[in-house]
Amino acid sequence: MLEAGREAGLVLAANCGGNGLCGRCRVTVYGRNVPEPTAAEVRALHREEIEAGQRLACRARLHGDAGVHIPPTTLSNQQRLQLDGGTQPIGVDACVRRHSIETFAPTLEDTTADFERVVQALDSGSGGKTRWQASAGVIRALARRVRATGWRFTAFTRGDEVVGFTAAGRRPLGVAVDIGCTKIAAYLLDLENGDQLAACAIANPQISYGEDLISRLVFARKGSAQAQALARCVRGGVNQLISTLVENAKAGPDQVADLCIVGNTAMTHLFLGLPADGLLAAPYIAATTAAVDTRARNIGIELPNDVFVHVLPCIGAFVGADHVAMILANGLHRCSHVSLGIDIGTNTEIVLSRPEHGLLLTASCPAGPAFEGGHIRHGMRAMSGAIEKIRQTADGLAVKTIDDLPPVGLCGSGVIDAVALLWQTGAINYRGHLQSGQAGVREGGNGKEFLLVEAKNTGHGKDIVISQQDIGEVQLAKAAVAAGIRTLLAFSNTQDEEVQELVLAGAFGSYLDVESSTSIGLLPRLPNATRLQAGNAAGTGAKMALVSSTMRDQAAQIAQHAVRIELKQQKNFNRELVLATRFPAQQQNGRPGAGQA
Amino acid sequence: MLEAGREAGLVLAANCGGNGLCGRCRVTVYGRNVPEPTAAEVRALHREEIEAGQRLACRARLHGDAGVHIPPTTLSNQQRLQLDGGTQPIGVDACVRRHSIETFAPTLEDTTADFERVVQALDSGSGGKTRWQASAGVIRALARRVRATGWRFTAFTRGDEVVGFTAAGRRPLGVAVDIGCTKIAAYLLDLENGDQLAACAIANPQISYGEDLISRLVFARKGSAQAQALARCVRGGVNQLISTLVENAKAGPDQVADLCIVGNTAMTHLFLGLPADGLLAAPYIAATTAAVDTRARNIGIELPNDVFVHVLPCIGAFVGADHVAMILANGLHRCSHVSLGIDIGTNTEIVLSRPEHGLLLTASCPAGPAFEGGHIRHGMRAMSGAIEKIRQTADGLAVKTIDDLPPVGLCGSGVIDAVALLWQTGAINYRGHLQSGQAGVREGGNGKEFLLVEAKNTGHGKDIVISQQDIGEVQLAKAAVAAGIRTLLAFSNTQDEEVQELVLAGAFGSYLDVESSTSIGLLPRLPNATRLQAGNAAGTGAKMALVSSTMRDQAAQIAQHAVRIELKQQKNFNRELVLATRFPAQQQNGRPGAGQA
Repeated sequence: MLEAGREAGLVLAANCGGNGLCGRCRVTVYGRNVPEPTAAEVRALHREEIEAGQRLACRARLHGDAGVHIPPTTLSNQQRLQLDGGTQPIGVDACVRRHSIETFAPTLEDTTADFERVVQALDSGSGGKTRWQASAGVIRALARRVRATGWRFTAFTRGDEVVGFTAAGRRPLGVAVDIGCTKIAAYLLDLENGDQLAACAIANPQISYGEDLISRLVFARKGSAQAQALARCVRGGVNQLISTLVENAKAGPDQVADLCIVGNTAMTHLFLGLPADGLLAAPYIAATTAAVDTRARNIGIELPNDVFVHVLPCIGAFVGADHVAMILANGLHRCSHVSLGIDIGTNTEIVLSRPEHGLLLTASCPAGPAFEGGHIRHGMRAMSGAIEKIRQTADGLAVKTIDDLPPVGLCGSGVIDAVALLWQTGAINYRGHLQSGQAGVREGGNGKEFLLVEAKNTGHGKDIVISQQDIGEVQLAKAAVAAGIRTLLAFSNTQDEEVQELVLAGAFGSYLDVESSTSIGLLPRLPNATRLQAGNAAGTGAKMALVSSTMRDQAAQIAQHAVRIELKQQKNFNRELVLATRFPAQQQNGRPGAGQA
Repeated sequence: MLEAGREAGLVLAANCGGNGLCGRCRVTVYGRNVPEPTAAEVRALHREEIEAGQRLACRARLHGDAGVHIPPTTLSNQQRLQLDGGTQPIGVDACVRRHSIETFAPTLEDTTADFERVVQALDSGSGGKTRWQASAGVIRALARRVRATGWRFTAFTRGDEVVGFTAAGRRPLGVAVDIGCTKIAAYLLDLENGDQLAACAIANPQISYGEDLISRLVFARKGSAQAQALARCVRGGVNQLISTLVENAKAGPDQVADLCIVGNTAMTHLFLGLPADGLLAAPYIAATTAAVDTRARNIGIELPNDVFVHVLPCIGAFVGADHVAMILANGLHRCSHVSLGIDIGTNTEIVLSRPEHGLLLTASCPAGPAFEGGHIRHGMRAMSGAIEKIRQTADGLAVKTIDDLPPVGLCGSGVIDAVALLWQTGAINYRGHLQSGQAGVREGGNGKEFLLVEAKNTGHGKDIVISQQDIGEVQLAKAAVAAGIRTLLAFSNTQDEEVQELVLAGAFGSYLDVESSTSIGLLPRLPNATRLQAGNAAGTGAKMALVSSTMRDQAAQIAQHAVRIELKQQKNFNRELVLATRFPAQQQNGRPGAGQA
């Protein structure tokens, strides 16, 4: 059914890559041909669910006509997609320039060839110092254009190359794309003034090949057909986004004159069709960390003109172009004070900038999927009905859900709030153990659990709980991030007090509650740091590099000069990791706990 | 049947483009299903031929199983294909360079990405001044290569770009291609020492879409599917040639690191997929006259590495890159004396070099197909059995055929010899009229004709004759060339005595008899000129530009500085044309005739 769904263009959640493990792709089958449950389904689903016709789309095979209901929680494209990442004023200095061409049709007396006629017009504007060239595709398009519309139009150039044409008077536009594991965000900008004309996002359609990056890399490794399927999938998504952007801005597709792409290293490798096998096993080697300039046409991006795609450089196998873009967007490479930048996700990237030492230290920590609701019993992605905030009020717990629908589960920020609440109320001890006798703590089927929302108040009529195991998952995830931060600080001999700015980037970083995160020890207490939740900073960086050659140069410098710290190779990392699973002493009420050392 | 032949890979002669007009594609059908003759076949074939089962492949449609005999004269790929064009010593200075890469596999301590590892090795050899880049395709190939064969191999670079890899110790090779209307010749050269390792040629497979250039351009104009079919056709031919070359030289296809292409403007446009509509009607405009550098992959040339194709520049719609290559090969652009270069063919290109005035004048004259045996009753292409030489001996006429087979027709050089013989023996007068009463002159079905070979001595048991109409065709063709030469000389105020060198390039130019050609007035008598039959000079020029960047620059200068004279716009051209149809006074025996004015 998962395959049939993929073919039909439905993006079903399949966190485990369709291997019957995560239980995220559940659907309800009705009618006469409900298939027998497989062993995996018996393991993943309750008996009542199986009896009600619930099946895993990745396991169930239909042998006759049947009705299938796909609940919203299974459909990935319902998900909240953050677009905004703030803007920093930068000088616009695009790679592509516009030239107005006005000339006359050839005659028997002047038989100058089509392209050379354009070159004459360009030369008369530029003084004739450039040795203009163009691809066969552009010369082809030119010959059609002039015969269809005459000799008055706009040419776009990039360096000494004519890359395309549009109607007279139209401006060059550019598209910046941030390819995330979960979503792809795209922005249409005016390349002459940097104005954003449109923005949109879709779920990364690769999700039907595996929710997490590793599942997709494993799929791509199976063979070139599989790698190509993944590349086609994400390129199709980018094509779709470009169409939407151009339509929304009422622009012509022939105005798109440049593209700039960011994403983590796996995403940019899959997008470019680069072999990503090296990213799957130690010593974790990228095919390239340099910026790649390639013609859009060569990587399946469909545009009328022969424009280029610039993929920002990355720092390493797990510190990608998106992280470079984040550093660029927040100016962490050229700030005058000590700054810490964190992009929290399944893979969390950290950068520490110590400008007085000329240091830009980066590291990546595999935090696991808990921050995206993965491996959490009632966890879910940030979709309608997900609990995103929890507060203790006089009347008990108050939960806020996405779209204010009755709650059906917890997304990442809700999970953090829930665990913070347990810690603040004493429902767990500093090792994360649920304390019997505390309000809300009860014995569940698999050990202790905490009741968050009673069945009568939920959207699906079942209790929403946080289990002991869920707390353990959060401890592992927060410990990975916290130990990473501690290790970077220790490596550079930086005291907490020295850090003057904490930048939280990425979707999760902008929705999480900083106080909750700090209280459970996910984020360090940095007494002198301002905190900035920067939103989709990777997208912002991509936009900056789209409209500015200077920014592309700076991105190249960031990638080249950043030092990547292999956390596992650091002496104290494992000790930090174990300590960081604990919950830190609380500042507000001074309850006892185990500090960070 | 013509279509079925095309699909089966048989290249049938179809001079008129398969429109039932030229009668060149005749085949014999036998068995029970011989189709009824069409009106076109009744027009083109004799009754006895039709009764014997002869049909035109372009008209006849089989409705059941039948045997079909394709005579050698109909099969285009039997044709003689000239390859040799002499060689001029030049300094080798190729665009692509070889670098030996020896480095170590990544470790946990050194996680430099694949491509950056190659860059380090390149930098250690080059001093680190280049900002190396590579296409996604090359980085893809690299990741596979190093994982399959380790970290010792050869890298090829072009400027600051890594374009590919081959095994350690192997040298970069290049392919030069001359795309002619009739044949495609290709040469494999060592890019480091310029040695030619292999050469081969095939008939241009586009021939099944029309023998002459105009038929093909008309076909391409019908739509993009048709233009693409023609492009695929010639690209397929080039791919086939590259395979043969590499195989013959026992080289690896991954050693091919550069390509250089010449051809007339229509051929290079069709090859590059450029719109050639502008070449079909006045004012005859090319899409571009500049050199085009494009990735082989982008134009369907299949090679393991991401190599470039350099297409030499052209001078105008009818003075192509092949002519530029001819000028280059013979050094006409930098010689110290007055030189005249002529490439005789259906379209004849002429260049006059007057170095003391810095002049490089070019012109093209549409001579028509007579020089290739076209429009001549018993004319044929230069294939086995074609009469290529005729001499008057004491025993009568002596004919020499290609491969010494019994004669079946006349190829171009045979036609020239035949007409020269008629003129020298007085069988025609100065206006070309056959003179009744002269030996060999008789009344045929369509007026007077001259019997060249009696039926009993021919390969097909029929008389071979030269008709009055054939003589007229030769007069038109030679007049076009002669008037072109006269006009160029007059335009530049050059006296015959001043010309010190006459270069005859191209297949026809190397097989024709210079004395015969001069005696009928096709070539001027230049009392002080040395004569050089330069063979495939276009191929030689392509080879020079392949192995030398300096030669590419010179080609660009030739294309830029050459002045193209539109013959029809010249005041005296029409008068010259009319006069040149006459036969000139003969020097040897002083027979009376009409001189050139």
